[in-house]
Amino acid sequence: MTTRQDAQALDARDPLAPLRAQFTLPDGVIYLDGNSLGVLPAAAPERVAQAVRQEWGEGLIRSWNSAHWVTLPQRVGDKIGRLIGAQPGETLAGESTSVNLFKVLAAALLLVKQRGDATRRVIVSEHSNFPTDLYIAEGLARQHGFELKLVEPEQIPAQFGPTLAVLMLTHVNYRTGRMHDMAALTRAAHACGALALWDLAHSAGAVPVDLNAADADFAVGCGYKYLNGGPGAPAFLWVHPRHLRTMERDDLWQPLSGWFGHAAPFEFSPHYRPASGIARFACGTPPVLGLTALETGVDTMLAAEPLGGMAALRRKSLALTSLFITLVEERCAGHGLTVVTPRTEGERGSQVNLARAEGAYAIVQALIARGVIGDFRAPDVLRFGFTPLYTSFVEVWDAVEHLRQVLDSGEWKEARFNQKAAVT
Amino acid sequence: MTTRQDAQALDARDPLAPLRAQFTLPDGVIYLDGNSLGVLPAAAPERVAQAVRQEWGEGLIRSWNSAHWVTLPQRVGDKIGRLIGAQPGETLAGESTSVNLFKVLAAALLLVKQRGDATRRVIVSEHSNFPTDLYIAEGLARQHGFELKLVEPEQIPAQFGPTLAVLMLTHVNYRTGRMHDMAALTRAAHACGALALWDLAHSAGAVPVDLNAADADFAVGCGYKYLNGGPGAPAFLWVHPRHLRTMERDDLWQPLSGWFGHAAPFEFSPHYRPASGIARFACGTPPVLGLTALETGVDTMLAAEPLGGMAALRRKSLALTSLFITLVEERCAGHGLTVVTPRTEGERGSQVNLARAEGAYAIVQALIARGVIGDFRAPDVLRFGFTPLYTSFVEVWDAVEHLRQVLDSGEWKEARFNQKAAVT
Repeated sequence: MTTRQDAQALDARDPLAPLRAQFTLPDGVIYLDGNSLGVLPAAAPERVAQAVRQEWGEGLIRSWNSAHWVTLPQRVGDKIGRLIGAQPGETLAGESTSVNLFKVLAAALLLVKQRGDATRRVIVSEHSNFPTDLYIAEGLARQHGFELKLVEPEQIPAQFGPTLAVLMLTHVNYRTGRMHDMAALTRAAHACGALALWDLAHSAGAVPVDLNAADADFAVGCGYKYLNGGPGAPAFLWVHPRHLRTMERDDLWQPLSGWFGHAAPFEFSPHYRPASGIARFACGTPPVLGLTALETGVDTMLAAEPLGGMAALRRKSLALTSLFITLVEERCAGHGLTVVTPRTEGERGSQVNLARAEGAYAIVQALIARGVIGDFRAPDVLRFGFTPLYTSFVEVWDAVEHLRQVLDSGEWKEARFNQKAAVT
Repeated sequence: MTTRQDAQALDARDPLAPLRAQFTLPDGVIYLDGNSLGVLPAAAPERVAQAVRQEWGEGLIRSWNSAHWVTLPQRVGDKIGRLIGAQPGETLAGESTSVNLFKVLAAALLLVKQRGDATRRVIVSEHSNFPTDLYIAEGLARQHGFELKLVEPEQIPAQFGPTLAVLMLTHVNYRTGRMHDMAALTRAAHACGALALWDLAHSAGAVPVDLNAADADFAVGCGYKYLNGGPGAPAFLWVHPRHLRTMERDDLWQPLSGWFGHAAPFEFSPHYRPASGIARFACGTPPVLGLTALETGVDTMLAAEPLGGMAALRRKSLALTSLFITLVEERCAGHGLTVVTPRTEGERGSQVNLARAEGAYAIVQALIARGVIGDFRAPDVLRFGFTPLYTSFVEVWDAVEHLRQVLDSGEWKEARFNQKAAVT
């Protein structure tokens, strides 16, 4: 049996332990929900206050130039790019994951249509992909005469063929914590003439990603999870330069043709002329306060670079999730919990999801009441995210101990834990 | 001739003067650019800091419920609604003006198509409408088989006919300060079977607007101008309830079918089912920090309600712009300035735009160097916004005095005022 002392020993020799000091964590909380909302970087309040008081309050409109607001989407995008195998100039921060997905998936459909193969009209995704991805794809499919086909992960290999237009997957599944092999699936998509689009919501800052090495076509991701950008933070998108070149050559526009994607927005010309490079995927005025907070969050990730970067973070992440799985099996046996997340490390993201036929929602609430914050994903999933920047091994031990107590005592059956809130 | 003492006397009897105390204005600045970026509400730094430190830092994911993040778009939307003649539940805050325009214009085109009249395929707008509106419309027209026709304001009456699908105008023109008659133009659009879509970027918080009285169909607007929401603040959209009902009846989706527009986002169902009411126009996760700052800005507008609200603000706005025009004519005569903004009060927004064949950009820069902040709009416009919440009459007098000195001295010809910045 693994003891609390064992966990403490792991913390004592954890080379990444100093990174936790970058964050403000509330007392009495074990936070295992960084995959839903990352914690507050200690630098964020002061930096946001500076943007509010000095840049907005004092600089006013002049800050578009003097505080470099105008290049924030590219600057923050490039910082995110360092975490996902992008070159400078390939990543753009802004808007929401949903809006960014709309832009890149619409561009992918345009590129497929441009090639003139009218039989290639199927977008394939996972049935359990995050719903907003499916909703956006469903809307675009409906509008552009494509079919959205939802399959189980084991059915994906059978989808590669002449009708496949776009393989659209979330790299790490929000509900199972399972990680796809991005390079292999992209290769298979390309081999049959299709494009591959990746949602990195649970990957960017969580697992190593190398979009260029995988030769991916498009990617989007979230700013408020592992990137610690704050509630509803701007998201990001990435486009392979070959597609930017084709779009430029053939005058293909992504559909959200707003002024910040114009080649010369401050010429105020009445006709749209897309910017070169990734800027053609910009749309509205950038959300300065949100991007400012997001930058502080991304900086907490980049601070890991001298300590080994994503490779070191990945090692710790796997050690955390493996410990959690081991402890759940050792200490919560007989309570009807199933580990949904793959045991094979190469298939695991930075979360562990447990399923339980009864009471999953209430058990999560009972844990939250004890200060152990995970989340519930309908219908039956207890989800725990592990963020190697700030999660310690002893927190993993303590979290499982709370889970054991909640299950042993049956306290989750109390009525107060069974009242569903607006956001679950 | 109007003297500085006359201006001081106007301030002394201005019933709205106390509202200025709601703002933090930098020393030594006369800010006539609230139509580009509103000034910092004094309440904003503390409120944003609270959202960062308490709601995000302490509350973490729990704040979706406990801090009511999930209803922010509706709550802030309803507050904005009070300024534009909307009923509760008709207005939604979030995303950018460009993205919101994409949603409502796409919905308008869908509704037109739904009626089955294939000859009605023209979107009419003004040649000098704000470019992002034209770019979004150009993209949608291209995609959906519509024509975007750009005309001069005096040509608008000739556009009402069987081919007109949507009249899309910005209520107050950014380049001329000219205000359209929303009710009359909407009536004329409806009389010929078309829809009317209004951009309120320079109207919301600047001039009285009554969308329901005007029977408008769709509207969008900006959060960072007269609503004082901060740089790149979330924008808003409004849809007449009759169109929401039709969309619900006929299962028409606005194209950005993201999860926050779903009837039950936290059921995580794989298929999109639009929410009832205005929520069907939501898309991604709401930008909490941006909406929080925006709410403090909108609150500065609502604080005028006990003092007469928009009607009182309008009286002061007209007094400010009239004084500015008078003073420019009295004190800057012979310097080649043309007043672009209508002298007829009913046709004037809350800005005064001057044109000058030579040196418009440099003159604006020279004024900014003196602390008088307006902005330049290519190719030849000096633009001055007057925000009755915080602009005083003596500031108007002093601004024109600076303008006179800049022109008399020719200091604007110095090289430093002629170097174009990234954002002009």
